[in-house]
Amino acid sequence: MSLKSICTALSVAGLALASVPASAQFSRPEDAVRYRQSAMSLMNAHMGRIGAMVNGRVPYNGAAALENAEVVALVSRLPWSAFGPETDKLSRRAKPEIWTEQAKFQQLGEKATAEAARLLAAAKTQNLDNLKSAFQATVNSCNACHDDYRNR
Amino acid sequence: MSLKSICTALSVAGLALASVPASAQFSRPEDAVRYRQSAMSLMNAHMGRIGAMVNGRVPYNGAAALENAEVVALVSRLPWSAFGPETDKLSRRAKPEIWTEQAKFQQLGEKATAEAARLLAAAKTQNLDNLKSAFQATVNSCNACHDDYRNR
Repeated sequence: MSLKSICTALSVAGLALASVPASAQFSRPEDAVRYRQSAMSLMNAHMGRIGAMVNGRVPYNGAAALENAEVVALVSRLPWSAFGPETDKLSRRAKPEIWTEQAKFQQLGEKATAEAARLLAAAKTQNLDNLKSAFQATVNSCNACHDDYRNR
Repeated sequence: MSLKSICTALSVAGLALASVPASAQFSRPEDAVRYRQSAMSLMNAHMGRIGAMVNGRVPYNGAAALENAEVVALVSRLPWSAFGPETDKLSRRAKPEIWTEQAKFQQLGEKATAEAARLLAAAKTQNLDNLKSAFQATVNSCNACHDDYRNR
């Protein structure tokens, strides 16, 4: 067995390991929907609080920006495992393309998670310009997915 | 002014600072209710995943326990600011005593947040016995509040 094939096997096993518990983590499809909607709702609230500072509606507060970015970064990792195939008919806002284009959808989810991690890093610098730029990139990654996969 | 009175003044100012933005952070009372329910829902899901390991329904996995405890610890800080006085009639499960006994309610919320922080510390030790004991203490703190302040 070549090193490459061992790595491929390990990688496939790793992916299987990561995805099996994800779908098994919800006892009912409705629980998965509630879970992902809860995560989206918290992200929306805390992005809104950072947005208010970025857009000058409330004064910039570095400690508050950091607290909000911590929530966004952590919670942004959660929703993607809850879009299992058995949940495809359970929410009005989730478009059917989520399930026919799972690879692209999951990739956009991972992109949003990565942008949220960069937002947290920017918040840690305690510099408003860094925050503004990372906030905009995170919003763009949210929108990129919402445009294709969320009903209005 | 004595050191003690300065500390008291700072502490009161700090509390005021912490609570004013909290109630101002929701543009509508319904948003606050959705926010706190979302936080409770995520906590419930991730406590359930740790509980499954603690109770032997799934094998103990130290890395997974830690990931779940990170979510519980962070999200457990969130709901308490969303029980503003204007939200007292908006949810079937929140008992009216939450608003007539705010000090006691907020104290129980803080206790739950503190237990969740200890749960995270226990998960970091990667020791199942530590996890079990901290998990039970966290469940007890959830129940202590639910018993008095949540309708069934």
